[in-house]
Amino acid sequence: MPAISIKGNKMPESPIRKLAPFAEEAKRKGRKVYHLNIGQPDIPTPKVALDAIRNFNMEVVEYSHSAGIESYRKKLAGYYKGIGVDIDYTQLMITTGGSEAILFGLMSCFNPGDEVIVPEPFYANYYGFAISAGVEVVPVTSTIEDGFALPSIDEFKKVITSKTRGIIICNPNNPTGYLYSKEELEQIRDIVKEYDLYLFSDEVYREFCYDGKEHFSAMNLKGIEQNVVMMDSVSKRYSSCGSRIGALVTRNQQVLDAALKFAQARLSPPTFGQVAGEASLDTPPEYFEEVYKEYIERRNYMVDALNKIEGVDCPLPGGAFYTITHLPVDDADKFSQWLLSDFEYKNATVMLAPASGFYASPGLGKQEVRIAYVLKIEDLKEAMKCLEEALKVYPGKTK
Amino acid sequence: MPAISIKGNKMPESPIRKLAPFAEEAKRKGRKVYHLNIGQPDIPTPKVALDAIRNFNMEVVEYSHSAGIESYRKKLAGYYKGIGVDIDYTQLMITTGGSEAILFGLMSCFNPGDEVIVPEPFYANYYGFAISAGVEVVPVTSTIEDGFALPSIDEFKKVITSKTRGIIICNPNNPTGYLYSKEELEQIRDIVKEYDLYLFSDEVYREFCYDGKEHFSAMNLKGIEQNVVMMDSVSKRYSSCGSRIGALVTRNQQVLDAALKFAQARLSPPTFGQVAGEASLDTPPEYFEEVYKEYIERRNYMVDALNKIEGVDCPLPGGAFYTITHLPVDDADKFSQWLLSDFEYKNATVMLAPASGFYASPGLGKQEVRIAYVLKIEDLKEAMKCLEEALKVYPGKTK
Repeated sequence: MPAISIKGNKMPESPIRKLAPFAEEAKRKGRKVYHLNIGQPDIPTPKVALDAIRNFNMEVVEYSHSAGIESYRKKLAGYYKGIGVDIDYTQLMITTGGSEAILFGLMSCFNPGDEVIVPEPFYANYYGFAISAGVEVVPVTSTIEDGFALPSIDEFKKVITSKTRGIIICNPNNPTGYLYSKEELEQIRDIVKEYDLYLFSDEVYREFCYDGKEHFSAMNLKGIEQNVVMMDSVSKRYSSCGSRIGALVTRNQQVLDAALKFAQARLSPPTFGQVAGEASLDTPPEYFEEVYKEYIERRNYMVDALNKIEGVDCPLPGGAFYTITHLPVDDADKFSQWLLSDFEYKNATVMLAPASGFYASPGLGKQEVRIAYVLKIEDLKEAMKCLEEALKVYPGKTK
Repeated sequence: MPAISIKGNKMPESPIRKLAPFAEEAKRKGRKVYHLNIGQPDIPTPKVALDAIRNFNMEVVEYSHSAGIESYRKKLAGYYKGIGVDIDYTQLMITTGGSEAILFGLMSCFNPGDEVIVPEPFYANYYGFAISAGVEVVPVTSTIEDGFALPSIDEFKKVITSKTRGIIICNPNNPTGYLYSKEELEQIRDIVKEYDLYLFSDEVYREFCYDGKEHFSAMNLKGIEQNVVMMDSVSKRYSSCGSRIGALVTRNQQVLDAALKFAQARLSPPTFGQVAGEASLDTPPEYFEEVYKEYIERRNYMVDALNKIEGVDCPLPGGAFYTITHLPVDDADKFSQWLLSDFEYKNATVMLAPASGFYASPGLGKQEVRIAYVLKIEDLKEAMKCLEEALKVYPGKTK
């Protein structure tokens, strides 16, 4: 039997999936499991998108253009103009989820052995895409003490080598919920310019910014127009994760040309998802107002509830719908598993994502979990109560 | 400005797309262009699939399981059992098109620098996926004189090195339309066994076999059960290319485990496409009978018409809906471009796919084109007439 590839062995199991068997077991025992572990919003997909799917009227479900349906690309460029990102429709490409945008970006810009700097904790799947492209992830650590603000530029400079070819940021951040300020982005801009790096900016949570803070797109950083590749997705903005529609956006024509060749090899992004994505652009503003109200209420409730529990520390996230929280436990991996296999409160329990999977540096995040506030407020209340009770009885409790 | 990656530079432009600007120009001049260049069938998608989409009733378009919706996987396993491939639903994974199945397969089984042997001419995008995975494609040449039958096993042995890790076949074949016999597959089996290679078998055209010939699946080759990885797709079987739904099928648990990790990184295959794919499994047999009748009529007409043109040689394809045809021209790339930019007959012309893009060996296929018979018979008649007239006046005509 021939052996598995080195990459196949190196690929990590998804940190949000490795506890799945324990959750299934808990459910088999009849327990209610509150899923705070995944970024699958419970918000309904906009009606305009679902209507477009229900009115699908092609006779043949055809391939689209490899860069996406032209009318969709044009309309999407209009959306970007509307949020102050001045690009033409030829400067974007529709991808199969934001995932594919990251993969095509890495394949087009990085050589095997190249290094990419990513502030940790980071979206765990960046690591998987980097392995696919043969790229080494080099972390710079953001800390809970600083509320997961951007590490200082000195920290970046310390890890730059001759192999460094880019930086990936996610803004607002998954998993920390941190929203980078314009000033922080300008610090990144300076280092990108100094070392002529690529800047990959994952902005899929752009619409989820709180407390009057504004999102600043990396596409609007002056002086590095040819270095920035922006990744986007309909998954979170329109609660349409299953559509698998994203976009790669850049003013760098060479990157667009290279990415298009990878796109041509896989023929086209999904047609149905594009139909839904194009229609989603007509989502009325009230939808986003509702969504905003819902998330802000959840966030405020949850952060407050968490910080009231002894030994728990949860910074206030400025965006997205995640938080990385410190728990008074010996090992968050063990604790998260224990919650599913050994604990119940009123026949319910909570599923968390241990934060260790979001760090590249070994040993970090051992007392942290990622919590996604993607549940209705009533469920969130029950889930917080469960967590509080669990921390009272967990055998590995620390301070 | 940072440079593009080596892979980005190495990726070929799709041979079926590089003539696209010339086709657009011809259309702008008001010319009718008969598209014989792409494998986009004109057959309607089954009504059961379109109905399932129109009745889509989820409130939230959610991620599915990374390996695909469980009910779909179970039903798909039933379909495979029905065609004599005895596998369990845990031995398959739903992918984003057959494309992703090939990419995940290569990533899971091959290391950068490994070699994969592919009979040429071959589906051009294998080359793109191989570049993505850092794998070297080593061709063995099948010839029009032999009707594109499997090259002799000696030809395979000649190119086997210490780096050879697998073979890719496509059966029935795109671009040649050749259907491998059980005996040919057993020859491949022997060599796969002797050298302990992976055998990737792309069987997306399985249902398109003509003249009473039966398809034999590589999954049913005895003695190499752990070596075979089968790729599948709904694109051609259900004329559902835009759904972007395929499958990776193997009895090798290690390959499944590795591929699942790549699948987890990209979260899930498209939900809408899976809904259509699952419903497609209920397509009534009459649909396939109609499709069969349609293609056999087209094939017979087209092969006959082509061989009546002086200097043209078209072997009778036993499957799929393609043929590689010899044309009496100096250079099929030039000729194909000339057809679009300099020729018209009754204000119409023909778009062909030059075969050079389907060969890895430089210089091969210079007098060959791939023709897809995906047009209605009336259009096919007009297209053949166009081609005949074009060959009368093309300045680079040879024998």
